[in-house]
Amino acid sequence: MDPAPTELLVCVKCRRGREIPQDERRPGQRLYDSLTRQAPPEGVTVTPVECLQNCDHGCTVALRGGDRWTYVFGNVDEVSHPDMLLDGAALYHATGDGLIPWRARPEHFKRNCVARIPPVTPAPSLTPEAKT
Amino acid sequence: MDPAPTELLVCVKCRRGREIPQDERRPGQRLYDSLTRQAPPEGVTVTPVECLQNCDHGCTVALRGGDRWTYVFGNVDEVSHPDMLLDGAALYHATGDGLIPWRARPEHFKRNCVARIPPVTPAPSLTPEAKT
Repeated sequence: MDPAPTELLVCVKCRRGREIPQDERRPGQRLYDSLTRQAPPEGVTVTPVECLQNCDHGCTVALRGGDRWTYVFGNVDEVSHPDMLLDGAALYHATGDGLIPWRARPEHFKRNCVARIPPVTPAPSLTPEAKT
Repeated sequence: MDPAPTELLVCVKCRRGREIPQDERRPGQRLYDSLTRQAPPEGVTVTPVECLQNCDHGCTVALRGGDRWTYVFGNVDEVSHPDMLLDGAALYHATGDGLIPWRARPEHFKRNCVARIPPVTPAPSLTPEAKT
């Protein structure tokens, strides 16, 4: 059975704390544009969102879908991170619960998880994953 | 029609950056215990979660349910904030989309939103709510 679809949510309003001239594309929009310039991994869709409210640590994305934990990642760079994000989305999509094995997890995901939220229908036993 | 149920998720593993002796209750657990010592607002359930991964800015809670935006709030104090959280959960529950009107929003919610995540089935037009 194919895994449930994965969404990569991208905050397209993100200014990453910078003053942005009226006519300049915002970093969040540039990130979204870059991510959608190539074909996404199978089962993954890239969705623009108006403000994930992690404004002090943008750009910000989230991964969710099916019975997986939702993960929010901050400090995303719109120039250097799109490939990493798409690779990470593919790894996430391959899981049933959203927990990419730690060793396989992109370094940026390890250090820049803003929050995670359990699936609405959690697995019978909650999965502990404290950083400390 | 009754609004869809609301969940107040509480990270019960939170140590709020402190070293906690082995036999001491963690701040997150104390927060959960305090929240569940009284009856929750109608339609709201309080759910313990093992790590919302906002470890550097705990304690951490999240509000979600139905077609509402999910909100994650950090820097929660387990002693002074339980009543505010339950009041906030009731206000959240009364909304269809999760957006508590700004003036009615608890001050702590205004300043300590870690992230928000859109409903899986978003309203036809996304609701902008940038802080800046």
